[in-house]
Amino acid sequence: MESFSYYNPTKIEFGIDKEKEIGKHLKKDGIKTVLLHYGMGSIKKIGLYDSVINSLEQNGINYYELGGVVSNPLLSKVNEGIDICKKQNIQALLCVGGGSVADSGKAIATGALYEADVWDFFIGKATIEKALPLYTIMTLAATASEMNGNAVVTNEQTKQKYAISSVLLNPVISIINPKLMASVSEEYLAYSAVDVVAHAIEVYFTASYHPNISSRFVESIVKTVMETTDILLKNPDDNNARGEFAWAAIQALNGLTPSGTKDGIFPNHMIEHSLSALYNVPHGAGLSVVIPAWMKWYKDQNIEPFKRFAKEILHSDDPQSTIDELQRWFEKIGSPTTLEKANIPNSAIPQLAENANGLAKLWGLDSTYTVETIETILNNAKSI
Amino acid sequence: MESFSYYNPTKIEFGIDKEKEIGKHLKKDGIKTVLLHYGMGSIKKIGLYDSVINSLEQNGINYYELGGVVSNPLLSKVNEGIDICKKQNIQALLCVGGGSVADSGKAIATGALYEADVWDFFIGKATIEKALPLYTIMTLAATASEMNGNAVVTNEQTKQKYAISSVLLNPVISIINPKLMASVSEEYLAYSAVDVVAHAIEVYFTASYHPNISSRFVESIVKTVMETTDILLKNPDDNNARGEFAWAAIQALNGLTPSGTKDGIFPNHMIEHSLSALYNVPHGAGLSVVIPAWMKWYKDQNIEPFKRFAKEILHSDDPQSTIDELQRWFEKIGSPTTLEKANIPNSAIPQLAENANGLAKLWGLDSTYTVETIETILNNAKSI
Repeated sequence: MESFSYYNPTKIEFGIDKEKEIGKHLKKDGIKTVLLHYGMGSIKKIGLYDSVINSLEQNGINYYELGGVVSNPLLSKVNEGIDICKKQNIQALLCVGGGSVADSGKAIATGALYEADVWDFFIGKATIEKALPLYTIMTLAATASEMNGNAVVTNEQTKQKYAISSVLLNPVISIINPKLMASVSEEYLAYSAVDVVAHAIEVYFTASYHPNISSRFVESIVKTVMETTDILLKNPDDNNARGEFAWAAIQALNGLTPSGTKDGIFPNHMIEHSLSALYNVPHGAGLSVVIPAWMKWYKDQNIEPFKRFAKEILHSDDPQSTIDELQRWFEKIGSPTTLEKANIPNSAIPQLAENANGLAKLWGLDSTYTVETIETILNNAKSI
Repeated sequence: MESFSYYNPTKIEFGIDKEKEIGKHLKKDGIKTVLLHYGMGSIKKIGLYDSVINSLEQNGINYYELGGVVSNPLLSKVNEGIDICKKQNIQALLCVGGGSVADSGKAIATGALYEADVWDFFIGKATIEKALPLYTIMTLAATASEMNGNAVVTNEQTKQKYAISSVLLNPVISIINPKLMASVSEEYLAYSAVDVVAHAIEVYFTASYHPNISSRFVESIVKTVMETTDILLKNPDDNNARGEFAWAAIQALNGLTPSGTKDGIFPNHMIEHSLSALYNVPHGAGLSVVIPAWMKWYKDQNIEPFKRFAKEILHSDDPQSTIDELQRWFEKIGSPTTLEKANIPNSAIPQLAENANGLAKLWGLDSTYTVETIETILNNAKSI
């Protein structure tokens, strides 16, 4: 096995009604003023907003509010949050929503303690040395942002969808109540499922060495996501399936599965970021377009994980079934698998490839992922 | 899924030569004086002792020493350590060895900040509210003590082998270098393998609800332990197998697998503690005696996990194969499966049952695990 450090200090509070204890947790941690950060208002419809405010007030926690985070969260909103934190002496972020809200909150938590432009951290011009503590209450399971230090933000001006990562951005406490996730639309459940599968398999398919135990953990996660998505599309109120889905999503990107692996990379995420940066498609929808296209290009370069995935997940001896069956499953659950189905014209390919290559450069992957190569991959995503 | 809290703040530093950085870690954490705690001197034979001392001296860390920890660590040694900590103003424990050394160190870390008898914590008379920080360098993988807050200690006077548990006892940093584990004897490798399998399966077999994702994680661990033990018995220097074994051991008891399960208990550990408390058999050897005996008694009360284990691990449709094949595997790797093979006379059964029932009372399991029931179970471990 390769050397690794594993450190994940986030506490997960999992269960029905756990969000009602948020004020108590903050009080115990000595926090008096938070920025309550959320999305487009769905937390008000499901009663979560009132429940959180109640808990804060009961525990004497002051709060300022910043809603309006969109899917693929924006730098302009992050800067708004940073201003509030600086002016109001905010001590912690309380992010209530999905991965986008958590990611936006992490960027705010970073920028709140930095004098210059927070985008510096995204383009490698500055290193995160401090950040405000962050708490989350999740209404969507997908990004595992609730148990990792990653955040992805889109800079509207430069059209870059870039990431930061630091253990300082790991939430202190993340609250996972499966019931709060039951109102997610079928579409977004499907996109989330694709995202979780992608997190689990990127390193599995690209590592030059992948320990059996890590492969088994990946397969455990993928099987669980496929199984519970199928259940939830029929019965959105199955709390056990919802809970397993949420826990699988967390395990897919909390540092467990890549431990001990060698040379693994995230090419599908890298390419997808261009789709959502330029065409604002949901991240999971972009991934279901990219993954089969990338696999078709990649398979013969590294056949073993395709054989293994086919055998363990699909009980098939044919490595090609990994691509075919995954693509079929994406379609079945309602996530697009061609550019056309994602409302992106084929003519956008050169521009997408150019954008993705910018990220490839930042990640040091541009010797393989040239503009031409990314074009070749995306050509596989043209509708027939 | 059931409600749960998951919080594991231990940092794992995994890889060849990582022990050489221990002084640097301690210095970074502001620690100036440690108690270096170890076992019967094997760390001197493999050069680890010198390597650790070097790293401490290079980083200006003062150290006091307490060696001599035995398998099934003793309360008398713990009290010796507590005295040193109190007299010398020790700031942290540095445990170098296997699970016994880590467990002994955790008890010392607890008692060092307590004015009365440390055994109070083991018998439920006191609750752990503070402890010295603890660092480990592991030479044996089995107990997962390197990534949990558990410690098991034997009180020689009362013949009780009891446990404490608190997240305050989670090591701050645990260093896992698979190469340091290569000198473990074949016998102890086998006992360790049994212990890890037991940690993984106790809740799997006893829970009234066990999410599929948790079952899959358990099966991933069991498959990995069986596979890598077989490899290591042939080739002890296979670092990849050694590393996977060590990582599986950690995952088996770091809080991952029971998350979301309901009503799971540890009856095999409970009964085994009487064997090692009264006859000082290695813990894993005791477990391989108890597990098949317990399974024979238990199977028809809860057939489903036996069916599942048979199918997933053994590719068999017969739930009885779970018991037969596990017993056969324990024998194959060299761990005893009868009292006689563990050098315990059948006549000891009443005394063992009495002792185990004492722990059953402490754990609130004595309505099921009466003295008579435990005798019935242990009768299944008589040699034919």
